[in-house]
This record gives sequence, C-alpha cells and structure tokens, in this order.
Amino acid sequence: MTNKAQIHLDPMTPVTFLERSARVFPDKTAVVYEDLRWTYREFSEQVGRMAGALLRAGVEPGDRVAFLTPNVPAMLVAHFAVLRVHAVLVAINTRLNSEEVGYILNHSGAKLVFADPELAPKILDVPGGLDSRPSFVNVLDPAAGFSESVLDGATFDEFVLGADVLPMEMDLDDEDRTTSINYTSGTTGRPKGVMYTHRGAFLNAFGEMYVHELNRDSVFLWTLPLFHCNGWCFPWAVTGAAGTHVMLRAVDPTKIYQMIDRENVTHFNGAPTVLLMLAQAPEAAGRQFDPKLKVATGGAPPSPTLLADLDRLGVRVIHLYGLTETYGPHVYCQLQQEWESLEAEPRAKVMSRQGVPYHHAFHLRVVDGLMNDVPSDAETMGEVVMRGNNCMKGYFNDVDATAKAFEGGWFHSGDIGVMHPDGYIELRDRKKDIIISGGENISTIEVEHTVVSHPAVSEAAVVAVPHEKWGEVPKAFVTLLPGEELTEEALISYCREQLAHFKCPKHVEFGELPKTATGKIQKFRLREKEWAGFEKRIG
Amino acid sequence: MTNKAQIHLDPMTPVTFLERSARVFPDKTAVVYEDLRWTYREFSEQVGRMAGALLRAGVEPGDRVAFLTPNVPAMLVAHFAVLRVHAVLVAINTRLNSEEVGYILNHSGAKLVFADPELAPKILDVPGGLDSRPSFVNVLDPAAGFSESVLDGATFDEFVLGADVLPMEMDLDDEDRTTSINYTSGTTGRPKGVMYTHRGAFLNAFGEMYVHELNRDSVFLWTLPLFHCNGWCFPWAVTGAAGTHVMLRAVDPTKIYQMIDRENVTHFNGAPTVLLMLAQAPEAAGRQFDPKLKVATGGAPPSPTLLADLDRLGVRVIHLYGLTETYGPHVYCQLQQEWESLEAEPRAKVMSRQGVPYHHAFHLRVVDGLMNDVPSDAETMGEVVMRGNNCMKGYFNDVDATAKAFEGGWFHSGDIGVMHPDGYIELRDRKKDIIISGGENISTIEVEHTVVSHPAVSEAAVVAVPHEKWGEVPKAFVTLLPGEELTEEALISYCREQLAHFKCPKHVEFGELPKTATGKIQKFRLREKEWAGFEKRIG
Repeated sequence: MTNKAQIHLDPMTPVTFLERSARVFPDKTAVVYEDLRWTYREFSEQVGRMAGALLRAGVEPGDRVAFLTPNVPAMLVAHFAVLRVHAVLVAINTRLNSEEVGYILNHSGAKLVFADPELAPKILDVPGGLDSRPSFVNVLDPAAGFSESVLDGATFDEFVLGADVLPMEMDLDDEDRTTSINYTSGTTGRPKGVMYTHRGAFLNAFGEMYVHELNRDSVFLWTLPLFHCNGWCFPWAVTGAAGTHVMLRAVDPTKIYQMIDRENVTHFNGAPTVLLMLAQAPEAAGRQFDPKLKVATGGAPPSPTLLADLDRLGVRVIHLYGLTETYGPHVYCQLQQEWESLEAEPRAKVMSRQGVPYHHAFHLRVVDGLMNDVPSDAETMGEVVMRGNNCMKGYFNDVDATAKAFEGGWFHSGDIGVMHPDGYIELRDRKKDIIISGGENISTIEVEHTVVSHPAVSEAAVVAVPHEKWGEVPKAFVTLLPGEELTEEALISYCREQLAHFKCPKHVEFGELPKTATGKIQKFRLREKEWAGFEKRIG
Repeated sequence: MTNKAQIHLDPMTPVTFLERSARVFPDKTAVVYEDLRWTYREFSEQVGRMAGALLRAGVEPGDRVAFLTPNVPAMLVAHFAVLRVHAVLVAINTRLNSEEVGYILNHSGAKLVFADPELAPKILDVPGGLDSRPSFVNVLDPAAGFSESVLDGATFDEFVLGADVLPMEMDLDDEDRTTSINYTSGTTGRPKGVMYTHRGAFLNAFGEMYVHELNRDSVFLWTLPLFHCNGWCFPWAVTGAAGTHVMLRAVDPTKIYQMIDRENVTHFNGAPTVLLMLAQAPEAAGRQFDPKLKVATGGAPPSPTLLADLDRLGVRVIHLYGLTETYGPHVYCQLQQEWESLEAEPRAKVMSRQGVPYHHAFHLRVVDGLMNDVPSDAETMGEVVMRGNNCMKGYFNDVDATAKAFEGGWFHSGDIGVMHPDGYIELRDRKKDIIISGGENISTIEVEHTVVSHPAVSEAAVVAVPHEKWGEVPKAFVTLLPGEELTEEALISYCREQLAHFKCPKHVEFGELPKTATGKIQKFRLREKEWAGFEKRIG
C-alpha cells in the first residue's frame, strides 16, 4: 500500500483516468445515451457535481452508496463520483428479487440508495423493510418513460442541483482503500460482498485498455451490465482510453444493431447468450462488420459453433474468464500467430479455451486437493486458483468466508479446469456442476459443446441427475433453433458418435433455459427440479 | 509499498513480464543479434542462468552490478537477471571517459562489473584505480571481432557455465526495492545516481506497451542505448508484449536499414539526431515504409522540418519527453483527431510539442519560482515539475541532491516550458540554456526551429554569448546539408523575417556540433568556448 509520504509513490486510482481524459480530450464525446451526449468536459463536470452532492449529503470516506439502475449515465457517473469522495459503490444486480435486494442493502449498510423507477418497487417491497434506514434518490429516465419518482426522496437532478463541482484531482490516502462492493449472485448461500480497491481497479482497467486495444477512437457499447463486477472495470478502462461510452438500458438485438450503426461502435462485451442473440437476429443476415467488431465474452465458454458464426459476421471475439472476486476477467485466450491460419472449426476450438493470465494478473494455477499443480496434460482436472493484484481484498464483513476463499494463500475459484501443455487453461466445470458417474468425472461443458455442435441446437445445459446404478448421469436441457426439430434419441445417438458413451446425456429435455441477469444459465434451477426428493442435492 | 502479507497485494515487478511471455510464447523469437536468435524459452533460460550465476558469485539483494557494454544480448539479459536476484543494475554510458566511468563504479560501489572488450580499457585507465575492488566479467562479442578478454576475470560464458537456472517466478519482498541506478550525464557537476524501483519499472513498462501499441507482432530495433534510462523501460515493455528485440552494437544508418528489412522492424526509438541521420541517408531516397514504422523520439524536440521529412518516409513519430529521473518518458504528444487532417507543416508544428502525461504518470505542472502554476497561455515560461509513480526514488547516496530535486514536494526537471491552453506542454529551454537578453527571455529552441527551417540547414544549436549592451545575445552553430552553401548574413536576415529581431542570432558559425552518447547536442561545450575569460559562465 502506498501513501503520499513519498513523492515517487503515488496511490493509484482509476479516478485519474477521468482527470486525464477530461484534460487531454475535453471536447471529445465521452457518453451517449438516447439523445444525451456529453463531452469529456461535461462528463467530468457531472462527476464533480455528483461528488460535491455526495459530500453535501454527508457521505463520508468508507460510506456505502448503493445503485439499483440499468446501464444509464448516472450509474457510470457514480463509478467515478463515489470513488472521488473515498466512498464505496454498491452496484446491485437488477434481476434480484426484493428479498435479495433487501439483504444486500442491509448487509452493506448503504447510507444512500439511488434507484431507477422501474426497479425501485423491489426496495419498497423488501420484506421487513431496511435496517440501515438509507436516504433515497430517484434516478429518473424520461427517455425510457420513467419520469416519476417512486421512492421517498429527491430526484437525481434535485440531489445534485447547486452542488459544488469537485475537481477530479483527489488526495487519496491509501491505494488499498475500497472502491466498491460487488455482491456475488449467491446461487449457493447468501450473496457475499466482494471488495475492490483503488489499486486493483486501476491495474485491471489498465490491463483491459491494453489487451482490448482501447484508444481514443474506441466506441464502447454497454451491453454488459455495469453492476456485474463494475462492468469488468470497463467504466474506468474506456474512460482511461478517452473512448466513448454508449449506454444502453436493455439488451435488445435490434437496438444493439441500431446503436452499432448510429455510433460506429467498435467494442462491446457480453455473455455468450448475448452473442448468440446477436448472431441469430434477423439483422445478422448477410452482414459482415468491417472493420471487425471487437467483442469480449465471458461468463461461460462460447461454443465452437457460436465462435464460427461470429467469425462469419465479422466479429473478433476475445474469450476471457474470471469471477467477481477477480474484478471480472483474470485470463483471456491470447491468440497464437499460428492459430490465425487455422480453419474456422479448429480455430474456434482453441479459442474456446479460457487462456492465460492478463499482464497485470500473473498468478494462476490448476491444483489438486493438496494444492499441488495438476500435470499440464489437458486431461487432469483440478481447481483453478489465483492470487495477486486482481484478486479481491476480501468479502465485506465476512471474515470466515474470506478465510475460506483464501485458504492456502490462494483464491479458490470453485472452477474445475485442466492445464494444457502450452500453459492455457480450459474450464471443465464449476466445482458444483461436475458430474461424477460411476466414479468417472464428466465435464458438463464438454458434453454441452457436443450437444450444441448439432446443427439444430441453439443452446444447451447439462446437469447431473440421480441414477440408481451410476449415482449420477448427465441430462441435457436443450433449446432448438427456430423451425428445427429433433428427438431425444437422435440427439443422444449424435453425441455417442463423438463422445465416450458414459459422457453422453441419458435424458434430453427441450425448452427455454433459466438464466441470470448476466445471461448465465442457472443450472442450479435445473438440478433442483431433478433432485427434488433425493437425499443428495448439489448446488 | 506492498509486500506479500496479503493475497491481493502482489509486489509489481517487470520480471513477471518475462515469466509471462516465456510461458505464453515459448517458441516465439525474443532476441536477435547478428546470427544469434533466441526464443522466449531460450531468453528466459539465459536470464535464469545468469541469475543463478550472480547468486553463485555471491551477489546479494541490494548489491550493485555494473555493465559497460553496447546494446548486446547480455545487457538485455542483465535487465532481468540482476532484478531477479534483487540486486541493482548500473548500466553505464559508454561514451563517458575513464575518469567518469571510475567515478560511477566507485560511487555505486559495484561488486561485479561486466564490460565489453572495446570499452574495458576505460576501466583499466581509471585514474587512481577503483576503490570498490569489483570482480570483472568480459562480455566478448566475437560477431563484432571482440573475442579476447581485456579485464582480469572470467568471460561471460565462463561466468554462467554450469550455473543453476533460476525460475523467473520471484519472491519479491517489496515493490519499492531498487532495480537500477542510472547516472545522469553530469554536464553540471558530478553524475548523480538515479534510483528506479520495481513498482516504477513495471508501471512505466506497462505505460509504454499501451501507448506505443507494442504487441506480440512488434519487432523492436535497439537504436536507443540500453544504458539510457534503462532504454526508457523498453527492455521490460517489449518483453511484456512478447515482441522481438533486435539488438544493435552501433547506430549506423546502413545497418539500421538492413535490419529493418531483414527483421521486419515495426518500432524503434531514438534522439532526433538519429532520425535525422536516417532521413538523410542515401537509403531513404524514394522509400516509404508501409505499414508505417513507429518511432518514438525524445531528448530534444524534433524540428518541424524533420517531422515533415519523416512523414514523407512513412515514419509515424511519437514525440515524447522526460528525464533520467522520470524513467525516461513522462509525457508524449498524444495526437488529437483533428490534427490528422492538418497539412504537413502545421501538423509538424503541433507535434513538436512535448505533450501530456502518460496514463500512469499524471502529475505534471509548469510553475513559477513560488510553485504557482503559470497561466495556460502558451507564452508564460516556467519550470516543468513532476511527481508520482514514474519519478525516481531518489539519488543514490545523495540525500542533499535528492532533497534539492524534490523541493516543495515535486521533482524539479530544470526544463523551462509553457503550458498551452489545451493542457499540452511545450519546452522552451533547459533552465541553464535560456538566454536573457536585455531583460527578455529568449527560448533557444524557438530560435533553433527557425534556423533549421531554412532549406539549406541540417542541424543547429543556439546558445547565449556575452554582449556588452544586452548582457547576452543568441549565437547559432549550424551544420549545413551536404552540398549547400549559406552565409551568416543570409541566415540572419532569413530569421529576421520570421522572429522578433531581438530573438534572432547575432552571430552564426558553421560546422559540426558536439554531441553526447545519446545524440544530444552538448551546448555547454559551445558555451564554454564563448564565455572563456568572462565572469559569467552558464552551465
């Protein structure tokens, strides 16, 4: 940790990225949302004014300031303004229910809560109300038809009206100070509050700027929710590069294509389900982006089929992987020169690996239960563990969970993967998703990739279901492409042509898949149903 | 400062860049020198073996290891191996004389000295010998005809023979540990030992990777001496990007053109004099690089004329500025979009500004004697001061000089500049170069740019000479282009057409200009001659 005692040790903070871009590119477009356009000068002024308003409202260093909004400009402003006054941003997943939102507001002890009118009812409906008695601010969004306050409190405009505009230059006492708390989705147990720091946020943002080649010509479309790992640190990265943020209230393929055309979008990020939606939209027909759209995807491995589709569409995909606890991405599938001349199918195959650590995030291993590295044989599965500057500081107010996550001096991801001989990792499963059938480990991801490679299949999720003889066997939940037909038997025999028989689904069910806010398939829901009444419950 | 007590705070060090590239790109070409080619696996092994040999030789953390060699592979290896064992690299300017080399070896207390046979006689000739009684290693260079040891000690090959190969993974206890000491050229007084740190070197290298768009396809030609600010941190930056280092014993235009063609060079760095040499070489005739060669230049502002010439040659110039005390570059002239459509001449004009801080190096001001910012009017001159993560830790064993340089909490560059209304700085002079004529400040750089814009002029240096009435007046030392002729009167009247008369040279002298190892013109030599016998002596 670094404080200002020495001239050569300046605490790192992502706030300086805005300070720099506002100085160097004051007239460049920083933020676009519907008809709103802010230059960097205006963006910085908005941030400075919100920071001034936070101070005026009594927010002190370390206080938590919560946001429950879509990807609207105020949410982006908060990513700098809250940090500027040394307070802590709590950006809440908008898909959570009232009970979960209430838990997070209470656990974080939020002093101020900013909410969108469409989402605010979740706060009103919190069972038992809020312990922390926060003040509320209504973030209206007239462009989307939300021009009435729902919560008892000021509107955002009233909140900032007449406040001093703080300069972006800040006197940060300690780069290890917490910038934000991002709650995990809590599919098992209560959500945990992952703490980020100014140092970590700065380094991660810098790493994203470098790897994704963000620069002053970049136009970034906000398909990824800002509440998700602080948008993988891209609020700070795009700003550091002096690129343009194009905000988006909801992820809708038609709207995405519109914005790409209207704003000349160069980059966006999204889960594979978002990419799938794009690739299958009517607007995709006959289209090929030139220059290529740069898209980073994570949350789940994109199937080789999807990667091949995107390749045809002129989308350059960077596949990455990480967790809330690692500021979002920790590794990315850095392309080797020789891969570029591969045919689409084998290229997609290597690109579906999760990859190698970012330049600021070196430390990653795949280990067995005794913390020994597994052999780099692309076969032996182990748990992915990380440490270093892009690991969280810890879970907020949860010493036990922090100690458990950091057991043995490494952060335990709970993800099961293999190490390829060339040092690239490939995930095989979530620890809790892996299927143990007759003593053999089955990677549900491997089975899913096979299922999805069938030309009639759009998406698939494979989970363990109970079996008398084998303990567990794989079952596939499958969404077909529009207009396609397929039987359970045909799909199973297709899989048996390509996989060891014990790995093939024993059952197939067709229909829509349950998903999280960020587009991740919620396997635990599928499992719950299958395991109802059985003793063993996974997840 | 950060130690390993906490999992999320990993000490930053540029050594991890080599660790990463050797893992991700083991078979990619890392280093080229004459007929030698090392992959990243081999480069890492060379570094590991030298590190093992340093330990075997008794080098302990904090010990100084000196190098007096041209840009040969061993010098690059040392930039990682010495750091790997927590020792301190002292890379010595090869143009210094015996007395200066002796001072640096004694002041740094070097325990081990590596030297090239061509340069080793400087060590043998040190007046009075060396206090610190170091051990010597002869870095032979058979490719250049230097295959005999000069110093009493092992050859490099013998030194490393049979040593353990240390893995690159290092257990750094403190990111504020010193990586290297780079001695200033000492044109005024004794050279001072500028200390760099692991944290600073990591951040600066990362900043260079980002700004200069270094990536795994980059091929970097080592025209810039590695002893100069540790090659502006490019040994670490190019390695971090997994680019290729092309080493070069001596800067020779024919050889440079050869290497560009043979190795498909994408980047190099050099002082404007190096660029001038290139632009005026016979090989430049009719050539236009495609894709453009990316060249960073600093040390002196390139004249608009030179920039226009390079533009025609297909060289994309990034103009940057910094000092030994700021790890080399602190600012660069980041291009605004609208500048790209300017005509060559006005574009060259804006590009000759020094610019705005790098992303990791925010803090820079232009101040008056009371540390107040001068107005951003492009007119009022003040001293450029900096602080933050890319300022040195201090001068080695020189508390007084450190305190003086850091007076008022900022590093004092000794450079005089103005702040443009758009936040870009432009240097007007070294503090000691500025001419005060009849109470008016005259920027020698402004006068030089005017002189050089004359079509017959190749290079120029302007210094103050004594004058009875005005105290000082400008005198121009001028090198003409081959085959050109020009009189003193013609040049002075050319200047009077473009500058206020008091700024114009009163005298002109034609001939070669004295230069430093890095191609900087040594104005103090020109001044010395002019001021001999006068009371006032500047510089």
